[in-house]
Amino acid sequence: MTPRRVTVVEVGPRDGLQNERAIVSTADKIEFVNRLTAAHLPVIETGAFVSPKWVPQMADAADVFAGITRAPGTRYTALVPNEAGLDRAIAAGVSEIAIFASSTETFSRKNINQSIDDSLATYKAVCERAIASGLRVRGYLSTAFGCPFEGAVDPEQVARVAGRLADLGVFEVAISDTIGIAHPGQVPRVLEAVLARLPADRVALHYHDTRGTALANVLASLPFGIATYDASSGGLGGCPYAPGAAGNLATDDLIYMLDGLGIETGVSLAAVSEASAFIASKIDHRLPSRHAQAEEARRKSEVRSQKYEP
Amino acid sequence: MTPRRVTVVEVGPRDGLQNERAIVSTADKIEFVNRLTAAHLPVIETGAFVSPKWVPQMADAADVFAGITRAPGTRYTALVPNEAGLDRAIAAGVSEIAIFASSTETFSRKNINQSIDDSLATYKAVCERAIASGLRVRGYLSTAFGCPFEGAVDPEQVARVAGRLADLGVFEVAISDTIGIAHPGQVPRVLEAVLARLPADRVALHYHDTRGTALANVLASLPFGIATYDASSGGLGGCPYAPGAAGNLATDDLIYMLDGLGIETGVSLAAVSEASAFIASKIDHRLPSRHAQAEEARRKSEVRSQKYEP
Repeated sequence: MTPRRVTVVEVGPRDGLQNERAIVSTADKIEFVNRLTAAHLPVIETGAFVSPKWVPQMADAADVFAGITRAPGTRYTALVPNEAGLDRAIAAGVSEIAIFASSTETFSRKNINQSIDDSLATYKAVCERAIASGLRVRGYLSTAFGCPFEGAVDPEQVARVAGRLADLGVFEVAISDTIGIAHPGQVPRVLEAVLARLPADRVALHYHDTRGTALANVLASLPFGIATYDASSGGLGGCPYAPGAAGNLATDDLIYMLDGLGIETGVSLAAVSEASAFIASKIDHRLPSRHAQAEEARRKSEVRSQKYEP
Repeated sequence: MTPRRVTVVEVGPRDGLQNERAIVSTADKIEFVNRLTAAHLPVIETGAFVSPKWVPQMADAADVFAGITRAPGTRYTALVPNEAGLDRAIAAGVSEIAIFASSTETFSRKNINQSIDDSLATYKAVCERAIASGLRVRGYLSTAFGCPFEGAVDPEQVARVAGRLADLGVFEVAISDTIGIAHPGQVPRVLEAVLARLPADRVALHYHDTRGTALANVLASLPFGIATYDASSGGLGGCPYAPGAAGNLATDDLIYMLDGLGIETGVSLAAVSEASAFIASKIDHRLPSRHAQAEEARRKSEVRSQKYEP
């Protein structure tokens, strides 16, 4: 059941940059997206059409979309919270939009100021108009492995909300480990519940590496036939619920493992490393990606002889 | 075949501290080992009886062994390169010693200034005397997944040297990913070759997290029945071949994953986190362990509400 080919959804320019303190210029965002395009990432979450009051980092999303050089076949997507955001996304010429619901009531209210039911009612209108406009819609499902407010989450609850998102017409639900607590013992329990409602080709996984388990979680997910994984270049973004801790799984680390497993992605790891090194120079801390750190170290030093090293 | 119980070999006080720039006092080393004992780590590599000229960080090994409070059943081990080191180890009252050979000629010569054959001849004398003195001997096997000088390494070559170590009477060979390049696609190839020569209960794995794959490699190794894994508290040590990059798999991260998988270790993750926080305050950089970083972030901040977070 392990897929021979995997689609990597690059979320660095949106989910990554949104969670960085540093303000990255529009020109640098455009350059970053262009470098990710050059690495042959098939899907690049390029921005969000949300309120600049809440997310100032995404205020220039339309300018970023206008400035990038699009490659044929690459999908340039945007997060959209409501119909006003959809209008801006359509005007910017996005390839696809993403909406975002929560598995837990408390997180839904804190994250988007709506109950789960209310958020799905909002998204119903968004989906109908987006699909009528010829846009595909992706659905994120937060707190699927645990909630910062409610703690443990019943996999059946995750599956129920995933099913409701699918009913709205989303082509794919990205089951998300918002606080980075998922481990390979939990992955089968959540996936079995979700896959009882949705086929594997409508499920993506969005793992965070906050406790170092993201790659192990991917490895545990592959035998379920899940073939779409989110990641951010260099691990850009950090964890919004634990400042200073790692957040998104790093694209670099994911591609290194998938290359090793002989699973095709079409992505160039060397080019991802270059994109990561570029964006690292625009933010105020070291990127969390282990692979990016090893590359940085390699660039800085020669192989040295050591003693007594297992 | 996945084991229900795993032995975690804590290598922080030796392999970890040896690769730190900061000089940690003898008293702090003793406190660190005592905290690891309190976490119920079953094996603690406490020091090395090597030349202080080459490894000044280990010059006080005898004082550390003299100062620690030993728990019944816990094994306090030391690295020993030759018979002179063995004499010092016996005088210090170690529970067990470890020797260290290489899978590749170039690394052997650079690491210990001997060919593989010469090193095994040295270790033959060490093993005979150690075993006659009632000490068990562990064998490390470096560069089993790749060599910083020779590149790719034939799994058959790894298996051959592992077999020669076993012939010396070592009870266990720790197959080591010295430069942290192993990935879950490679793990089965190396283990199949090694397990054709040695039973699973004589094999341990020593993974480095330099490219973020260490936990995924453990997950790929468990179905082979391998039940002993090396790790260092907090990921102490870094990578000697890539300064600034991660080295040893962090004990914290390993226990988090094994706990999640329901695999018994007997180790307290909370107590490991405390040992990691203690030693973090004695060195000059942040510990690489993702779990330790998440714990540090948790201590520093309250859960905050965020917007638009998958």
